[in-house]
Amino acid sequence: MNVAVLFSGGKDSGLATLLLEPYFDEIELVTFSFGRDDAWKVAAAAAKELGHPHRKVVFENDVLERSLQILMDTGYPNDALDYVHQVAVESLAKECEFVADGTRRDDRAPKLSVSAVRSLEDRLHVQYLRPLAGLGVKTIKAMASRYLDFQEENSGKHPASDFEVGLRFALAERQGQREVERIFPSNHTHTRVIRRLDKCPKNS
Amino acid sequence: MNVAVLFSGGKDSGLATLLLEPYFDEIELVTFSFGRDDAWKVAAAAAKELGHPHRKVVFENDVLERSLQILMDTGYPNDALDYVHQVAVESLAKECEFVADGTRRDDRAPKLSVSAVRSLEDRLHVQYLRPLAGLGVKTIKAMASRYLDFQEENSGKHPASDFEVGLRFALAERQGQREVERIFPSNHTHTRVIRRLDKCPKNS
Repeated sequence: MNVAVLFSGGKDSGLATLLLEPYFDEIELVTFSFGRDDAWKVAAAAAKELGHPHRKVVFENDVLERSLQILMDTGYPNDALDYVHQVAVESLAKECEFVADGTRRDDRAPKLSVSAVRSLEDRLHVQYLRPLAGLGVKTIKAMASRYLDFQEENSGKHPASDFEVGLRFALAERQGQREVERIFPSNHTHTRVIRRLDKCPKNS
Repeated sequence: MNVAVLFSGGKDSGLATLLLEPYFDEIELVTFSFGRDDAWKVAAAAAKELGHPHRKVVFENDVLERSLQILMDTGYPNDALDYVHQVAVESLAKECEFVADGTRRDDRAPKLSVSAVRSLEDRLHVQYLRPLAGLGVKTIKAMASRYLDFQEENSGKHPASDFEVGLRFALAERQGQREVERIFPSNHTHTRVIRRLDKCPKNS
């Protein structure tokens, strides 16, 4: 069995990967980019640390256009994040039997609704996995810390390959930093996997 | 870090246990019983196969009384299952830092609401983990099959330590089989872990 994981290079998609490792023959780590910045390189380096093949996929141009439009129309990030995430999941679902991501129990966005998941799985004959869907923020941090050395960083200074950072960057480029500040919360941070501490999970 | 897992001896709580294994120092498998049947012995045998300590906890008498009352008042199983499950989770939460179960993405009951989880974690300073919360039925079967040999059984013939089977047994004893047939769906099956196929999860 092979699985493709939506991978930003942070601790969440990193832990999702580790949780699936013992159950899949091959794991491909896939980072989506708007093609406007080099943040995907951070994810590529983290993937190398984890020891899995990595691939970058650049969204079609109209995905960026539409998500910027949603951002400006709604004035908040969630609907645009949901849209971009859904495009990414569907894109992988067309070519893989199993698609996973690092979305967490307590995340508000991006999130696929129950009916969107059902539709995705039925239409595309894919299984969609959220290994962190039943774990709280504290648990995820504790579990990830067991095998990963990661840093928390300010997204304004250190770009990352998560969808929010990509949208912030593209919006700033197009509409200016003031529009970013109107729509997104201040002080967004993300994590970056620096090193894998232990290659082989301990087994009782 | 130590975790207590609500354990029926079936493939779901079995897979939940395997998923957590690399991240916790000690895992205790805990089976709740109404004290009316010996089904917990099946769970104890499965726990031995998995290689983790096992404990049986008998519910207080009034838990059985109240759940039978809910069953008869509502005429369907979900509210009673939710009640029994919540009592079990809260009971473990009072003594453990991490409490897990094998409830799945597609399960309707038992299920704690988002606010019930938040309240539980805040009141009792516990982390509640659902390792299968982001996995569909097909994925769970595929992942569990990698490490576990399990059987599907008819719950009428082969008792199990899941809450539904315990409630069916107690209701039949008290009110007769006809009441069970009125309230529960026919042909309930459960799984039973027979053997652990591989002690050490493969690591890429």
